[in-house]
Amino acid sequence: MNEPLYRKVIDKIVAQISTGELLPGSMLPSEMQIAAETGVSQGTARKSLMMLEQLGIVRREQGRGTFVTARTPESSLFNFFRLRQPDGQMIRPELVSQEVTERPALPLERETLDGAPMRVFEIRRVRSLRGTPSIFETTVVSTIRFSGLDQRAPLPNTLYVLYQQSYGCIILRADESISSVLANDDTSQALGVPPGMPLLCVDRVAFDIMGRQVERRRSLCRTDTMVYQVSLT
Amino acid sequence: MNEPLYRKVIDKIVAQISTGELLPGSMLPSEMQIAAETGVSQGTARKSLMMLEQLGIVRREQGRGTFVTARTPESSLFNFFRLRQPDGQMIRPELVSQEVTERPALPLERETLDGAPMRVFEIRRVRSLRGTPSIFETTVVSTIRFSGLDQRAPLPNTLYVLYQQSYGCIILRADESISSVLANDDTSQALGVPPGMPLLCVDRVAFDIMGRQVERRRSLCRTDTMVYQVSLT
Repeated sequence: MNEPLYRKVIDKIVAQISTGELLPGSMLPSEMQIAAETGVSQGTARKSLMMLEQLGIVRREQGRGTFVTARTPESSLFNFFRLRQPDGQMIRPELVSQEVTERPALPLERETLDGAPMRVFEIRRVRSLRGTPSIFETTVVSTIRFSGLDQRAPLPNTLYVLYQQSYGCIILRADESISSVLANDDTSQALGVPPGMPLLCVDRVAFDIMGRQVERRRSLCRTDTMVYQVSLT
Repeated sequence: MNEPLYRKVIDKIVAQISTGELLPGSMLPSEMQIAAETGVSQGTARKSLMMLEQLGIVRREQGRGTFVTARTPESSLFNFFRLRQPDGQMIRPELVSQEVTERPALPLERETLDGAPMRVFEIRRVRSLRGTPSIFETTVVSTIRFSGLDQRAPLPNTLYVLYQQSYGCIILRADESISSVLANDDTSQALGVPPGMPLLCVDRVAFDIMGRQVERRRSLCRTDTMVYQVSLT
């Protein structure tokens, strides 16, 4: 089957964003220019931009042009941080503690993370919600893709903003697998809760703009005062 | 602020589907007819159909026309049933037991369910996954909106297909709030698990095509062999 023409345009723009040739917030060429440069019709160029907008990669502003979406702390939290007050109100997590270590990749990490890294950074964080330590989070990324990450401590609250600004890595999708577990000794110490307290265990794999798996993360969350909220359509 | 013109077209089509004037699977008028009937341009009619397609309300088929989406057991399960094997594979839940009772609405149910019902049907079901009773589910709907539901037992596995086929009610969105709880005596008996086992508690409110809250549901789920999976973008 032939690749549709708009796919060619999308891939080209995504590649330009991924390499930093097109920076977050910068303006894309016009539909007419894109059409001329890639040898497609202006209708195809328009369709490509509409699809990129649906994917959240660009933002079109009436009468101004099309711009590369910048991941802000707000958009990052809004899309990827699902813990909410029971009434649906957003809560901004605060950092309680953070530790970044380098270690050999586990077999699953090596098999699944992009670039099959031999070594990874493990970022262990405790985050609190409204003053209560509520999330014990372990994040794993490749030491090659995120070279020097351990030198950047303290890391910002929203890692995805750092990924984009310092590594040109835009997280576009995260798949989460959620289960219910009891707090073990480690977790109960980190969160200051009794062992055996029920917690949400959220296992995330995050994908960049090219669909590559770039991060694995496990979050253990108290849900006695907060809940994980999601909308299905 | 003026309502955009495409909103007028969308509302009209949604109302026609909601009242049964346009049945699931039936063909919509052409863009040109819609434009003429509602007094908008053909471009606006096209935009309306594109938005209805994005919402999953209609399906456009190249060269054939636009059709009202029918909720099938498969699409219903795929979109709204999030328990999966750890490898992501879908599992079809099987009914173990079912009980439908009529009772007065609790204050929260009366306040939030569409039509402020005085009385509700409560559907209690145990569903099993791969032979293991895994979900203990309590579903609440208005006795007015779903008149005679208690006479229809045994209800089909996917209630949303019944809602659409027998009541013209299309569920378009479900908001879920997830927390981690310990099995109490009731739940442990229903699922045959030891009291104190960690379970996912999934509280759902489901909305119809007009954005009305038509169902509240609590599901208590074992997640020792299955997980709740969701994709964030």
